[in-house]
Amino acid sequence: MYYPEPISKLVDSFTKLPGIGPKTAVRLAFFVLNMKEDDVLDFAKNLANAKRELTHCSVCGHITDKDPCRICEDQERDGTVICVVQDPKDVIAMEKMKDYQGKYHVLHGAISPMDGIGPEDINVPSLIERLKDEEVEELILATNPNVEGEATAMYISRLVKPSGIKISRIAHGLPVGGDLEYADEVTLSKALEGRRDL
Amino acid sequence: MYYPEPISKLVDSFTKLPGIGPKTAVRLAFFVLNMKEDDVLDFAKNLANAKRELTHCSVCGHITDKDPCRICEDQERDGTVICVVQDPKDVIAMEKMKDYQGKYHVLHGAISPMDGIGPEDINVPSLIERLKDEEVEELILATNPNVEGEATAMYISRLVKPSGIKISRIAHGLPVGGDLEYADEVTLSKALEGRRDL
Repeated sequence: MYYPEPISKLVDSFTKLPGIGPKTAVRLAFFVLNMKEDDVLDFAKNLANAKRELTHCSVCGHITDKDPCRICEDQERDGTVICVVQDPKDVIAMEKMKDYQGKYHVLHGAISPMDGIGPEDINVPSLIERLKDEEVEELILATNPNVEGEATAMYISRLVKPSGIKISRIAHGLPVGGDLEYADEVTLSKALEGRRDL
Repeated sequence: MYYPEPISKLVDSFTKLPGIGPKTAVRLAFFVLNMKEDDVLDFAKNLANAKRELTHCSVCGHITDKDPCRICEDQERDGTVICVVQDPKDVIAMEKMKDYQGKYHVLHGAISPMDGIGPEDINVPSLIERLKDEEVEELILATNPNVEGEATAMYISRLVKPSGIKISRIAHGLPVGGDLEYADEVTLSKALEGRRDL
């Protein structure tokens, strides 16, 4: 025993977080010991509350502390457009942009046969249900631009197409502020393919 | 509001930790949401407990969950040698070595006139008291090898010398596994100065 038990337990807890190895965990644990007691108790409370109070919105699957979530409940948002994303963090990235006024659907993953994840394992069925009930005119597929994300977008697009709903995929191309010289071939090829008239 | 309140509160708590910026804090908070509830509640409990149950040993100043600490209470350890360190983490580094069987005294800092820290602000007075009460034969000064640590070692050494207790300072030199080529001049000069007959 190098550490008194309360420290080693706290170190163990920190080690479970991603990107935090044993040395960082020790540093964090000792930092906590020097924090004000109120701050530490707040931290503990925030941890427990975040886990306890947050659920997934029964409509869109976004993470929320009330069901349905604020975005689904917001009457000012355009319910005829649904943006399909993989992760709650993607909703937040979209919201930060402040340009999008439609609603969302969070899949919580992407189709990945390699990992045994099929359409039934992510929120695809609830999306299909939703399209039947709500008056949706456009579905924007904003899954990640990688193999799994593309496959998921393709799958949903084929599934929904017959219903006549307009389906679009977010553009691939060079990131703003990027450099042509350092762009990889696939991105460059997509950027060329997606060129627009000026 | 991008995040539901319980998440943004948790993100704030994580941001207070050293080396964790806003982006990492968000990543950790979302990771916590996907952790098992028991693990999160354990984490919260460990945080609160670490702060609540740990105090400083009234004898040596090391961090402990019982007073006096296990090292001070251990009858098998040699009470005639006291190793003076700056920080509880230094005690743990020494203990990991497994070579040292004496006791410790933790200063909780170093003398630093630049920051307005004098001998009275760190655990020097309690060390002097301890030297009066206990039968100490040797004091090993293991403060850090930097300006503040050297000044502190020098101060304690001058203060204690008249009492006749043997005072030593841990060696400066090249770290084991290091490379002469990359050693800085001061370390090299100390290594040369501290050379030993073979």
